[in-house]
Amino acid sequence: VDGTRERMIGTTTRLLRSQGYRASGLNQISAEARVPKGSMYHHFPGGKEQLAAEAIAASAAFVSATLDDCLARKEPAAALDSFIDLLIDQLEGSGFVDGCPVATTALETAATSDLLATTADAAFTAWTRAIGERLHTSRVPDADGVATAIVSAIEGALVLARAKRSAGPLRDVQRTIPKLLGAPG
Amino acid sequence: VDGTRERMIGTTTRLLRSQGYRASGLNQISAEARVPKGSMYHHFPGGKEQLAAEAIAASAAFVSATLDDCLARKEPAAALDSFIDLLIDQLEGSGFVDGCPVATTALETAATSDLLATTADAAFTAWTRAIGERLHTSRVPDADGVATAIVSAIEGALVLARAKRSAGPLRDVQRTIPKLLGAPG
Repeated sequence: VDGTRERMIGTTTRLLRSQGYRASGLNQISAEARVPKGSMYHHFPGGKEQLAAEAIAASAAFVSATLDDCLARKEPAAALDSFIDLLIDQLEGSGFVDGCPVATTALETAATSDLLATTADAAFTAWTRAIGERLHTSRVPDADGVATAIVSAIEGALVLARAKRSAGPLRDVQRTIPKLLGAPG
Repeated sequence: VDGTRERMIGTTTRLLRSQGYRASGLNQISAEARVPKGSMYHHFPGGKEQLAAEAIAASAAFVSATLDDCLARKEPAAALDSFIDLLIDQLEGSGFVDGCPVATTALETAATSDLLATTADAAFTAWTRAIGERLHTSRVPDADGVATAIVSAIEGALVLARAKRSAGPLRDVQRTIPKLLGAPG
């Protein structure tokens, strides 16, 4: 293994996250990954669409592992608080560039690529399910609906936070999550 | 007035909403608006960036008017329920293409265009303020924070709903909003 494939996926993940799908051409990806453009089609015969789908799936799995780790170690409210702290650190540490690695591509391609829409949906569904199962265990009413609302609120706050260049929206969502879990507001 | 400017803004709004900023080139905009490309720079000397900023501001004002109308006629929970019903109708009626007219461009350009980031932030802030003021009047605790969480949840649900091609995430957010307002869950 020479790591070529992993380097291409890593570079694509970073570019999708900061600038989205359309802006990330194969020329830029191959240049920044230091991989000849010809070998991109060797590794990803489906071209940019396949490469983006694998990059989204890989970054979604990384987010899932982080989320699962938070949920395994703490009560739901504290776990989600810690998870959002990590998102804030990443967003602020990157100068408000590193938001959700899935959302930009999902919005750009939802109407035109079944592969990318399905891959994005699988990511959101995995995160929602992880939270929902934890809320079920803690007997939160309407656990699946609340889990979807929490993932939605975090995703939306990442959109607002990037436009505002401030973590404020994430802090607001963080503070209101206990109300969704049925804790005293 | 020959309506050229309005036609260009209307076409741009529609394209930004369905496919985003990068995919919407001046060639496509001028063709679909039936405006010679040369006259685009006459009306919008700042080019595509200026045109997109005006399109986002115009569609944000339209959303604000709809939201204000809902908030003026009903209690907050019922008003937000009606507003989300309208979003669902639009999303479903368009085959899951017409989501938020601001979010895609905001995510694509947040790192590269101060003008577009500022315009998107102004849109999100206007919606948040309208809800926040209404919640203050109804004595909802942490009204501004809750308003930001509600706008975030709706924005995020529109991302999830487009990827899933289902209004389910918006229905989940709709059902959980009373918990954020302090009503019994």
